[in-house]
Amino acid sequence: MYVDGLQYIYPSRAVFQQMRLGSLSAVQITVGYHEDFLGVVDNLQTWNHWFEECGDLIAKATSCEDILVANAAGKTAILFGLQNSLAIGADLARVELLSQLGIRFCQLTYNQQSLLGSGCFEAYDNGLTVFGREVVDEMNRVGMIVDLSHAGHKTAMDVVGYSKRPTAVTHANPGVWHSVPRNIHDDLLKALSDTGGMVGFSLYPHHLKSGSDCSLPEFSQMVAEMVEIYGNKMFGIGSDLCQDQPDSVVNWMRNGHWRKTPAPPVVFPDCPVWFRDNRDFSNLADGLKAAGLPAEHVAGVLGDNWVAFWQRGFDPL
Amino acid sequence: MYVDGLQYIYPSRAVFQQMRLGSLSAVQITVGYHEDFLGVVDNLQTWNHWFEECGDLIAKATSCEDILVANAAGKTAILFGLQNSLAIGADLARVELLSQLGIRFCQLTYNQQSLLGSGCFEAYDNGLTVFGREVVDEMNRVGMIVDLSHAGHKTAMDVVGYSKRPTAVTHANPGVWHSVPRNIHDDLLKALSDTGGMVGFSLYPHHLKSGSDCSLPEFSQMVAEMVEIYGNKMFGIGSDLCQDQPDSVVNWMRNGHWRKTPAPPVVFPDCPVWFRDNRDFSNLADGLKAAGLPAEHVAGVLGDNWVAFWQRGFDPL
Repeated sequence: MYVDGLQYIYPSRAVFQQMRLGSLSAVQITVGYHEDFLGVVDNLQTWNHWFEECGDLIAKATSCEDILVANAAGKTAILFGLQNSLAIGADLARVELLSQLGIRFCQLTYNQQSLLGSGCFEAYDNGLTVFGREVVDEMNRVGMIVDLSHAGHKTAMDVVGYSKRPTAVTHANPGVWHSVPRNIHDDLLKALSDTGGMVGFSLYPHHLKSGSDCSLPEFSQMVAEMVEIYGNKMFGIGSDLCQDQPDSVVNWMRNGHWRKTPAPPVVFPDCPVWFRDNRDFSNLADGLKAAGLPAEHVAGVLGDNWVAFWQRGFDPL
Repeated sequence: MYVDGLQYIYPSRAVFQQMRLGSLSAVQITVGYHEDFLGVVDNLQTWNHWFEECGDLIAKATSCEDILVANAAGKTAILFGLQNSLAIGADLARVELLSQLGIRFCQLTYNQQSLLGSGCFEAYDNGLTVFGREVVDEMNRVGMIVDLSHAGHKTAMDVVGYSKRPTAVTHANPGVWHSVPRNIHDDLLKALSDTGGMVGFSLYPHHLKSGSDCSLPEFSQMVAEMVEIYGNKMFGIGSDLCQDQPDSVVNWMRNGHWRKTPAPPVVFPDCPVWFRDNRDFSNLADGLKAAGLPAEHVAGVLGDNWVAFWQRGFDPL
């Protein structure tokens, strides 16, 4: 069973067909970056259209039981998550409302300061805020997984220490392997390990050593080393696949509507040749096996660990 | 000419009549705390109703010329401001839109963390954020006065250092006189003085030494000392008068919609007996005179300084 902890593909029948060809069982799909509550509702409307249009290939899932049902019917389960907390605004009650709409994951921040904490590109990080603690409590209560991707280090450490339930970094790599602000420190890995948290290894080129040229053995070796240090249960994949999104989207990710002068235009980096789309999960399996991981650990990293983690995380308290 | 740097009165014909009886020339009225953009629009609709209903007593003003026109017609000028930046959301363009709706003042934060900076009740203050700098630039451009009331100390100091135009603390007192998180440090007073900024002395009991029992001579003496240290031009009044608001409002101010368990219920504190409503500005004039301030300085603190500051602050760059 292959499971992806995070994708932001541009939805189409062709992409959903690739999910089936690649035997992808379940994937968290991002339904909000800079969007406010109504913006997220708009995105959910679009996805409802796709579930109706391509119901032979995909199904909406809000529980691990839904994943099993979808898979038994030959479909890939789509779970929803947010990469920022703007949809919550300053209104705590929206956490439960977003959960009722099907959102099962939410990042507290996206690169910058939010009402809840600091992003990894702020100059200073003041940690989890007063309101942030309320939101983490509420996410714990309703069974929404706190995603620490894109958070600042102090904020992430604060949350791991504060949250009553395990938290995840759905898509990032160890900073010791490739040191960029989006990758994570050893002590966050340690703290996640100590609290039953999880990390999804990212395949987004900027998070990879050597970028788009990173080799499968190089990536697989890093995974094997992490599994050796922290054990098999803590890791999954969070590919951050942004397939078929136009380059305008990566510029919108960077600029949102918050900058007077947009950052210099960028393009999406090329995917590594061994992970171009959802048909390539078997390449990852081959790579991890070649790096010496036993079959059970390969299965853990490529799917079972996320499902087990989600199973524990989705039930309301 | 009496001018008040900030009020949040519950609007009524009776209150507007008191403004006229007290010879109040102009006042900044808060039109948003926890409200988002549409919430502020709702509040502006309410005020448009009042301008129509009580157009013999009050007039909307967005410039100092408007104040003169209103006063010449025997009316009190109402200027709009926000006590938080939630209405801006993560959308820089809303600064200009809010300006076009008549907003002339905006606090970056209200007690807690915002997208722009930290409030005075956060445990840690990481200063003006990346987006915060963009918003200050835009407020500078369109001529919206940056209000540092309710901000954390580091955030306020960052803004005074960063803003291209003078900034204000519209309603607070010196912490050296009465040390509470809402009052301000000496070095912020110094920084405001060095940059042509302003401070409005607050009459809200929690900001006063001895609270509701603070005497007029005690308050006036503090004002006289500040004028002696920093000169006459830097000070005005920001009474923070919340006349006729039900106690539910002060609890909403504290809790917004962001807390699961509301803070223990509170009530609005009693106003000092020498400043119960808009008819009492003459008491302030008497008190400042008795404290030894020359007539020109009394006129400065009670009105002229705000108007001169606004005159410099409202023009677009």
